[in-house]
Amino acid sequence: MKPVPASALSKAKLQKYVRLHQKKFRDQEGLFLAEGLRTVRELCLNLPEEEMLVALLVREGDVEALRFAQPWKGKLFSISEKECSQLADTATSQGVFGVFRQQLKLEPLVEAVSAKAVKSFMVALDDVQDPGNVGTILRTAVWFGAEALICSTGSADRYNAKAVRSCAGSIYAIRHYGVDRLDLELLRLKKLGYCIVCSSLEGKDFREFTSWPGKQVLVIGNEANGISETVKALADRLVRIPHAGASVRVESLNAAVSAAILMERLALS
Amino acid sequence: MKPVPASALSKAKLQKYVRLHQKKFRDQEGLFLAEGLRTVRELCLNLPEEEMLVALLVREGDVEALRFAQPWKGKLFSISEKECSQLADTATSQGVFGVFRQQLKLEPLVEAVSAKAVKSFMVALDDVQDPGNVGTILRTAVWFGAEALICSTGSADRYNAKAVRSCAGSIYAIRHYGVDRLDLELLRLKKLGYCIVCSSLEGKDFREFTSWPGKQVLVIGNEANGISETVKALADRLVRIPHAGASVRVESLNAAVSAAILMERLALS
Repeated sequence: MKPVPASALSKAKLQKYVRLHQKKFRDQEGLFLAEGLRTVRELCLNLPEEEMLVALLVREGDVEALRFAQPWKGKLFSISEKECSQLADTATSQGVFGVFRQQLKLEPLVEAVSAKAVKSFMVALDDVQDPGNVGTILRTAVWFGAEALICSTGSADRYNAKAVRSCAGSIYAIRHYGVDRLDLELLRLKKLGYCIVCSSLEGKDFREFTSWPGKQVLVIGNEANGISETVKALADRLVRIPHAGASVRVESLNAAVSAAILMERLALS
Repeated sequence: MKPVPASALSKAKLQKYVRLHQKKFRDQEGLFLAEGLRTVRELCLNLPEEEMLVALLVREGDVEALRFAQPWKGKLFSISEKECSQLADTATSQGVFGVFRQQLKLEPLVEAVSAKAVKSFMVALDDVQDPGNVGTILRTAVWFGAEALICSTGSADRYNAKAVRSCAGSIYAIRHYGVDRLDLELLRLKKLGYCIVCSSLEGKDFREFTSWPGKQVLVIGNEANGISETVKALADRLVRIPHAGASVRVESLNAAVSAAILMERLALS
């Protein structure tokens, strides 16, 4: 196959894309940077609209990556080894990057949808700090058909490079939005009939609840400190995943793991 | 509080410890390197025996870390900024490292234990390649009281720095061992009465199984390719976690997430 011709990247564009490592610039530009052949390919295959892809950047001479980029060749740029290391977030870069548009800023879930809905399930992050956890929770929420992912300001940015990798291409597949005050957003949803379910080590064994309401928000807390007090005060249910075996030999479960176990129960029961 | 006096680290020891980034040297020395205040602290608090801790290495002048190291001051060494960057695996090192002994090489689960056991649950990794997934699965297996974690040769090393971080200090809390041929080990366990449960996208909805046998091994496959054919041929049950919602908008779940959802069901049902 003839190699796809790729344009060189201008200095101005390179600088703009390198700056996307910082949240401030990501938000300002409404863009994000993804790295790695697998991640970029997954995102390209799941584009809601063609124009969400801004640019594909491939290290010169990388034949496999260039082949994958064929359908988007109008947006393909060739980068040097040096430019590659400026863009890279990982230690051993694969030399493949994508610049994508962020999901359109949507209003928080409109009343019209959720007031009518009989069955609706959302996930809220109360300062989940690890970007890998945020990405994995988003991916799991998509799998279990959650309607939205709501993120407190203290949570890791879902457009962070590691979070994007952990999403496995599902970042466009769910409505996600940040809120300044998670407690106020939960209060708003509570008034729309949502049951607030918080994951907490002090909660009740989740298997004791034999039925789950049609409309619910699952709240996942910070890795070290759990759910914040103001949010806990709004909880309709505090739930705990019990350990098994003779003795407790580990303090807790990983946040994305707890989220997954509870989502399975809430969504599939 | 008076700072704990710390010895300087010899060049020979530094070199030895830096080499622990490579599996070959970890296996040869029977040691592993852990990084980060939280990870090292969790490991120290969960030591099965004092002598499993070989050395604590702290960047000079780091008061908080020195304070935590107080109980192990005989094993404390001070390292320079330069030595710190040689040891570091993460981009922004916290300057705290621990050198630990690996779990004693144990025989694969002895017949005596498992033949008698009425209830026994193990987890096997069939080429799970991401060290973060391996560590998270180990941590979850400990939480759900698994008796052992069995690792195929193609799985990421559980003493890899990232795997150790993901274990959250639980690496000593479960028997784990590697096998050259996972299929043969599963066959051996099958003869001891274990039911082989494989997670697979082609499996049957796991909720259709309303009861789970007393003795079972849960097998988790490779992130991209799933369970290998030779292992699949031994499966008593192939199970799948169904998605929810109108359409499939993400291809799969993360391997550690699938493992957790299934472990919860196998261990707690």
